[in-house]
Amino acid sequence: MPVKMLAPADEAYNYPLLIKQLLLSSQRYAGDNEIVGGNNGKRYSYAEFNERVQRLANVLTEAGVKQGDTVAVLDWDTPRYLECFFAIPMIGAVLHTVNVRLPPEQVVYTMNHAEDDLVLVHDDFLPLIAKVKDDLKTVKGYIQLSDADAPPEAPLDTIGDYEGLLAAAMTEFDFPDFDENAIATTFYTTGTTGSPKGVFFSHRQLVLHTMALAATTSMNDNMQLLQSSSVYMPITPMFHVHAWGVPYVATMMGLKQVYPGRYEPAMLLKLYMTEKVTFSHCVPTILQMILSSEKASTIDFSGWQVLIGGSALTQGLARSALDRGIQVYTGYGMSETCPLLSTSWLPLDAADLELDEQVQLRTKAGRPVPLVNMRIIDNKGRFVKHNGEDMGEVVVRAPWLTQSYLKEPEKGNELWENGWLHTGDVGTIDSSYTLEIRDRIKDVIKTGGEWVSSLDIENLISKHPDVELTAVVGLPDDEWGERPHAMVTVRAGAQVDHETIAEHLQQYVKDGAIEKWAIPDTVTVVDEIPRTSVGKIDKKVIRQQIKS
Amino acid sequence: MPVKMLAPADEAYNYPLLIKQLLLSSQRYAGDNEIVGGNNGKRYSYAEFNERVQRLANVLTEAGVKQGDTVAVLDWDTPRYLECFFAIPMIGAVLHTVNVRLPPEQVVYTMNHAEDDLVLVHDDFLPLIAKVKDDLKTVKGYIQLSDADAPPEAPLDTIGDYEGLLAAAMTEFDFPDFDENAIATTFYTTGTTGSPKGVFFSHRQLVLHTMALAATTSMNDNMQLLQSSSVYMPITPMFHVHAWGVPYVATMMGLKQVYPGRYEPAMLLKLYMTEKVTFSHCVPTILQMILSSEKASTIDFSGWQVLIGGSALTQGLARSALDRGIQVYTGYGMSETCPLLSTSWLPLDAADLELDEQVQLRTKAGRPVPLVNMRIIDNKGRFVKHNGEDMGEVVVRAPWLTQSYLKEPEKGNELWENGWLHTGDVGTIDSSYTLEIRDRIKDVIKTGGEWVSSLDIENLISKHPDVELTAVVGLPDDEWGERPHAMVTVRAGAQVDHETIAEHLQQYVKDGAIEKWAIPDTVTVVDEIPRTSVGKIDKKVIRQQIKS
Repeated sequence: MPVKMLAPADEAYNYPLLIKQLLLSSQRYAGDNEIVGGNNGKRYSYAEFNERVQRLANVLTEAGVKQGDTVAVLDWDTPRYLECFFAIPMIGAVLHTVNVRLPPEQVVYTMNHAEDDLVLVHDDFLPLIAKVKDDLKTVKGYIQLSDADAPPEAPLDTIGDYEGLLAAAMTEFDFPDFDENAIATTFYTTGTTGSPKGVFFSHRQLVLHTMALAATTSMNDNMQLLQSSSVYMPITPMFHVHAWGVPYVATMMGLKQVYPGRYEPAMLLKLYMTEKVTFSHCVPTILQMILSSEKASTIDFSGWQVLIGGSALTQGLARSALDRGIQVYTGYGMSETCPLLSTSWLPLDAADLELDEQVQLRTKAGRPVPLVNMRIIDNKGRFVKHNGEDMGEVVVRAPWLTQSYLKEPEKGNELWENGWLHTGDVGTIDSSYTLEIRDRIKDVIKTGGEWVSSLDIENLISKHPDVELTAVVGLPDDEWGERPHAMVTVRAGAQVDHETIAEHLQQYVKDGAIEKWAIPDTVTVVDEIPRTSVGKIDKKVIRQQIKS
Repeated sequence: MPVKMLAPADEAYNYPLLIKQLLLSSQRYAGDNEIVGGNNGKRYSYAEFNERVQRLANVLTEAGVKQGDTVAVLDWDTPRYLECFFAIPMIGAVLHTVNVRLPPEQVVYTMNHAEDDLVLVHDDFLPLIAKVKDDLKTVKGYIQLSDADAPPEAPLDTIGDYEGLLAAAMTEFDFPDFDENAIATTFYTTGTTGSPKGVFFSHRQLVLHTMALAATTSMNDNMQLLQSSSVYMPITPMFHVHAWGVPYVATMMGLKQVYPGRYEPAMLLKLYMTEKVTFSHCVPTILQMILSSEKASTIDFSGWQVLIGGSALTQGLARSALDRGIQVYTGYGMSETCPLLSTSWLPLDAADLELDEQVQLRTKAGRPVPLVNMRIIDNKGRFVKHNGEDMGEVVVRAPWLTQSYLKEPEKGNELWENGWLHTGDVGTIDSSYTLEIRDRIKDVIKTGGEWVSSLDIENLISKHPDVELTAVVGLPDDEWGERPHAMVTVRAGAQVDHETIAEHLQQYVKDGAIEKWAIPDTVTVVDEIPRTSVGKIDKKVIRQQIKS
């Protein structure tokens, strides 16, 4: 017998989940809160912001944008980018947030692949776009984004400049209803090989992600990341997974928001102080850059909460941040997951915990956010016990996962299996439901039927006082399947070889932190560990170098 | 051109919104929190609670309950009722929360109308059910709910008693996925006339209502109703709109929950104190009952937050509560709306406000919760300005409104019009988006082309020191359409007539609080104002009495 169902969806009660509903609530809660632009110092009330979104919708429509079209944006982090976050999907078009840090040929590739119809482009990127414009096969027009009151002349034909067009546009726009499964946004993720792959999210997915984030960031007494008194400043580019979706949450809640433009430490610190920022999110390197900037030493960081994602928050960085008064937490997710899957979670008694435990809690990937179903599976696809020890691949179900890669569903074959999205991360979940990421599945070392985390070995090696940096990889072995091998850089003047490292690790064998057979077979000392173009350690190249 | 759409919903990414996802997150956050029963003093960890939900699912399945069946519950407010909130919809059946306060013939009517297949019934209601069981046309079996360790013999054949059946059941149940538009719950709302009408809500609707409530109750610094440290005790019956849906929120957040059984002031106060309750919700009369109970005078109520709904929180009661340290707020909604539409909202500077302003903010219906679209329309269906003065009917769109009345969609013709649910309430919305309910649309007095709130006139009349209680109604008038007429009860020994009241109101005409033509044409003094069976002032009868 089937479940009893509501009548079909064309009935009056049907109310699709659309991004316009997030904007709807913003003005109710905002009061005197403003949206501030670090790019040009402009400040907008939420009433002005709402009007500007409507003006932008009129500008886009008059420029010929129709439902189903794609509108690309190349900009720094600005209030006008936030306007695009709303106006473009709200008219039924797709927002393509172009990764402006890609090499020019990849920018062109993504814009052609997404079939961008209209392009909003900042002065800083106009020369690039002017140069490649004949290669952009689907683009029908350009709008200039300028931080100057009098925009400089553009090096290509445009429909006009953003502020001029907005000023001339009608102030009201009646945003239509449509299917909540309409695609709202798309952007590209780059691996170490192959062309960038597009991910895409629907209105429904973004609304649900927003609601779950709102609950997550508000409901924990010890982690009040977003409250009505919060001041939010993203330090994750808006082209990167919609700045992790937090601008949608902050807008729905009507919070004061600060958009920093380009990420220059001096500007970030100035905005942090003058605007009294309470919550930000960034990758570890940005936090490191801020903390080590000269000006930072004189600043009081207490009251700043920072969610770290993109790559692992190390215990060392977490300590440095906590020492300076910054409340740091880990957020876990990826472009394919919209992105948030889990965050650090402080229990009720967190205030009583030792610093070591605090650091542990804050550096783990944490607990899944509401509506996310998360499991770990072994190499036979079986669910692994939540005992904090058994490792496996992290798989998830959630209402906001990319369905496939844009126009290339075959590339998503490895992404989706048996109804679960496979993250490619290897981790453990403990009895408190806390996820700890231990490795990438392609980096984990499969030796003698066991999985060994390359990161675990790296962490132990890096405790040797003479080791600067290390990377551990698995290489094929006839007897064991794979065996671990290490590459290290050494502090000036120090001498390190295989014996040094093996002896160093031996002490951890004694206390059970590592198995004897996880000690690397070889140690290669180098001047520099190979990195990818975006600065990540490149284990593919390391494998080749060790092998040769 | 159509919007770009995700591929059809049978793809792997599809993840329906189901009540089981709310339960899924509960254990992640709960830690040592317990679910406490005031009925029998039992306490359950969230792990035990999760296991009991699975055991119950096995009991129901073995009792023959299939997807699409309806399972009725007649119980006081208990942890086992909360188990039913989850297990019954999670197996794909419909939970019918039977209003145990209805007269027996209406209980029978609703159970037949809902086509209940299985009935879970508390010892206190077994005699009633035993008496009417031959009239229950669709019921195939009964399960006894007992607070006693050794359940008394039931006066009818049962499948067994709840605890005994749970103890014998398997501990694991694999809850299936199904369409999120499957109906999860149903219950009946009673008007002053006609049979009770069934409303019904889907899994999707309840999940979205839960997410919006979680955001609403957590994100305001000055109204931290539900936080991870909160202790929740409902004082709104669980049969009444799922105790306003808050048990779903509290469970999703893994909070400590206290279910009080029957509502006896002594027990409520004892649980409040011993379990350190921080958040409750109830109708005004319950709060009044608690505050005026003898024991209450010695209790420290600071730290208790109470959301008031069902009928208006008067300024007088709000003052009394605030005086005692209780933070009171208004929640606005109705059975047809799942129920929550809006709540009081304290702005950031609330602490600086005078008591009068605090009372104003807390007694208004407040600001719509996220995802709710709310407008007021005039008698020609036009949107009314948000100026705090222009009155109109409150209409809403939201993802959690009943689609119609169960099996009687024709009764919902007045409910839905042009895609908006018509609440039947008349109110104003001011520039801060704050809703104030002014009257029921059937009670508002339409005179000379204007709408006059009967409640406004009542409020002014009730300020006369000799007036105890008053009700104002509109009666047909050849010249003006309708004219206002008042009925009053008078304090012992006092003399009041039409002239007294007219003179009293004259002062408010001077200061603009009332128009001259809103002064009632007649004043009828009575010993008692007519009330309905549930204690509400019965304006229908009052109209008849004044006319005659």
